[in-house]
Amino acid sequence: MTEPRIDPALAAGTARPMAGYQARHFGWAVDAGVATITLARPERKNPLTFDSYAELRDLLHALQWAPDVRALVLTGAGGNFCSGGDVHEIIGPLLRLKAPELLAFTRMTGAVVKALRLCPQPVVAAVDGVCAGAGAILAMASDLRLGTARSRTAFLFNRVGLAGCDMGACAMLPRIVGQGRASEWLYTGRALGGEEAERWGFFNRLCEPEALLADAQALAAELAAGPSFAHGMTKTMLHQEWAMTLDQALEAEAQAQALCMLTEDFRRAYDAFVARQRPRFEGN
Amino acid sequence: MTEPRIDPALAAGTARPMAGYQARHFGWAVDAGVATITLARPERKNPLTFDSYAELRDLLHALQWAPDVRALVLTGAGGNFCSGGDVHEIIGPLLRLKAPELLAFTRMTGAVVKALRLCPQPVVAAVDGVCAGAGAILAMASDLRLGTARSRTAFLFNRVGLAGCDMGACAMLPRIVGQGRASEWLYTGRALGGEEAERWGFFNRLCEPEALLADAQALAAELAAGPSFAHGMTKTMLHQEWAMTLDQALEAEAQAQALCMLTEDFRRAYDAFVARQRPRFEGN
Amino acid sequence: MTEPRIDPALAAGTARPMAGYQARHFGWAVDAGVATITLARPERKNPLTFDSYAELRDLLHALQWAPDVRALVLTGAGGNFCSGGDVHEIIGPLLRLKAPELLAFTRMTGAVVKALRLCPQPVVAAVDGVCAGAGAILAMASDLRLGTARSRTAFLFNRVGLAGCDMGACAMLPRIVGQGRASEWLYTGRALGGEEAERWGFFNRLCEPEALLADAQALAAELAAGPSFAHGMTKTMLHQEWAMTLDQALEAEAQAQALCMLTEDFRRAYDAFVARQRPRFEGN
Repeated sequence: MTEPRIDPALAAGTARPMAGYQARHFGWAVDAGVATITLARPERKNPLTFDSYAELRDLLHALQWAPDVRALVLTGAGGNFCSGGDVHEIIGPLLRLKAPELLAFTRMTGAVVKALRLCPQPVVAAVDGVCAGAGAILAMASDLRLGTARSRTAFLFNRVGLAGCDMGACAMLPRIVGQGRASEWLYTGRALGGEEAERWGFFNRLCEPEALLADAQALAAELAAGPSFAHGMTKTMLHQEWAMTLDQALEAEAQAQALCMLTEDFRRAYDAFVARQRPRFEGN
Repeated sequence: MTEPRIDPALAAGTARPMAGYQARHFGWAVDAGVATITLARPERKNPLTFDSYAELRDLLHALQWAPDVRALVLTGAGGNFCSGGDVHEIIGPLLRLKAPELLAFTRMTGAVVKALRLCPQPVVAAVDGVCAGAGAILAMASDLRLGTARSRTAFLFNRVGLAGCDMGACAMLPRIVGQGRASEWLYTGRALGGEEAERWGFFNRLCEPEALLADAQALAAELAAGPSFAHGMTKTMLHQEWAMTLDQALEAEAQAQALCMLTEDFRRAYDAFVARQRPRFEGN
Repeated sequence: MTEPRIDPALAAGTARPMAGYQARHFGWAVDAGVATITLARPERKNPLTFDSYAELRDLLHALQWAPDVRALVLTGAGGNFCSGGDVHEIIGPLLRLKAPELLAFTRMTGAVVKALRLCPQPVVAAVDGVCAGAGAILAMASDLRLGTARSRTAFLFNRVGLAGCDMGACAMLPRIVGQGRASEWLYTGRALGGEEAERWGFFNRLCEPEALLADAQALAAELAAGPSFAHGMTKTMLHQEWAMTLDQALEAEAQAQALCMLTEDFRRAYDAFVARQRPRFEGN
């Protein structure tokens, strides 16, 4: 569909294309720079398993060096996003583990979030139906979230005897919806409908269920057509500045933006403006 | 009402029950693990005094080790929450103090907030009528806030010549309602009605005045029936991660959640799920 | 209009009045302690240039020591706020610079934000019409924001091939509107109308276009009539506590508020309360 771009980084060995990746535990497709990950065990509402966690972690990690993926959509099959860690395939086995093994597991799930934040591609979650537990975490850790009115998002950890502090929720959720609403959501485990979640700023907007995936992919395509190097810098800084003082953040942004001013995309935009055309960005 | 649970920590001396505590400057009652503190000088709209500050600080501090309190409701008598520091009993005397004594006072009020955040029990503020100055701070420092349409919440410090930076307001309020709205609230000293405060995310929801206390106690009872050890960990992490980087937060949550996975409550939830029953948590 | 106050700091050389400042690249007027900066190249929708950036930085920096300015309004002429960095006067020349010179530029624009946050005066942005790029940043970096329904606020950086991390946006915008909405705003570059921006908490309220400047000056006058030393402390702490732990913030506020309790304004407020009068603050 899209012309592959010649990438000097590819020749130099610092880039590794991922469009041809063969996923084993979820769907993976790349079209015109937009990758779509589809959690696809619809008969169980797309639960996560040890295997899918590990593959997500490794794939998202690899996206750091993938020049052929410029935006990512995260979705689920069959009208649900993700039901979280499977009770039988995850919780049961966890009960037989000792402390070091449990920590290895919680570090692995945390590594999925870390990889999702570390890769330079903006991530759009397309959330319909059930979005629960670790599924809600994956939506939360995305950059943008499109929902549906019928979606039900719940951080269920307290219902299984666990704490709300799972995979970064106590750090990230308050920054998205505010400390008071995040506290309620995490303490009570209640499910938020789409309209309330949009009102709280969790969803960026609501879509019709049948249009959700196309809307998310259109938004991702719009971002993929933008200045990808600059988008990656925006993503890095949104998280890098999280715990900086304002003075530190101003210096960090001065350096980051100066780098972006040295890109060809910056020149392309200026040239297009002068020529009264729409710029065509190439991410370099 | 509730069966006392056998607590090994009690025998080991690391636990100190507080249900029998005799409060001197406010109401204190514990029912089925839910404690209620009632500021009760209704003829003055429940102001705080040097004595009630100090007793609040000490009681909240002691709740760290109280196994018989699993959630806390904070409310006021007579249709008002709290009018803040009394003008005659607090502000007048402060004018006669020197710098070191003033710092001792502001550190004492800060210690109330610190104790409110340090104790593991989720705190639900039930706010009707006047909620002003240090009263607004107590509501702000709670985990969850139920209000009424007729409530009036104001951070009045600027009206008495003081700054908005009182008892943590400049750190906590922006995280609850956002930096722009917090700035307006703190600079102008204006009172927010219940509907606006709910819209801003300060109140979790509005209740009818006559149902407010019962609603708050029902919410607290729901939390008290949950996995208390995990709830306490959620509370700890919501504040511990405040100024962490995301990577630090992910590691901190991996450790905290691994601890929760070693509790009996986690096993109870799994067993109940398999048996298609509702889990009965015991906080251990 | 207002009586000049006798200021010991002036005699001691630590204060420098700015009411008489002659601005070269924008309008500057001071009335009764309220200064108004008017970006005034209405035929181009009030763009910023190298010269106006530098003068803003220096003037805002000087406001730290200006006892005759107690609040600041930031606005634009001719029905628009500010169109940001001028394409021809800023972006064109930037394309000819090398890395060290680009960093000098991004540090200069960052220094404008730093000075805006460092001066003790509360800053009210009055935003009508176009508010774009660095103009949106100036509004964002203000303490309070009044808008109009017809205003259009956009962080356009991605449209010119740059990143959203400009002049502190990735640090400040998430704290004002939440991480999810800030991400959308910065990644897409889309323009928010006034109603949506108010709903997100970016604008404190909307005004009629013809009343906007008067409303902003009235709000600033209300703040200027308040305890200016305490307001300056509120502003300092709102930013100083940004990346502190809650314990650090409580200690910082204990010290800051103890200082405010030593002011004459605190005593004036108490005396006025006892005399059932409205206090008259003098900022000392």
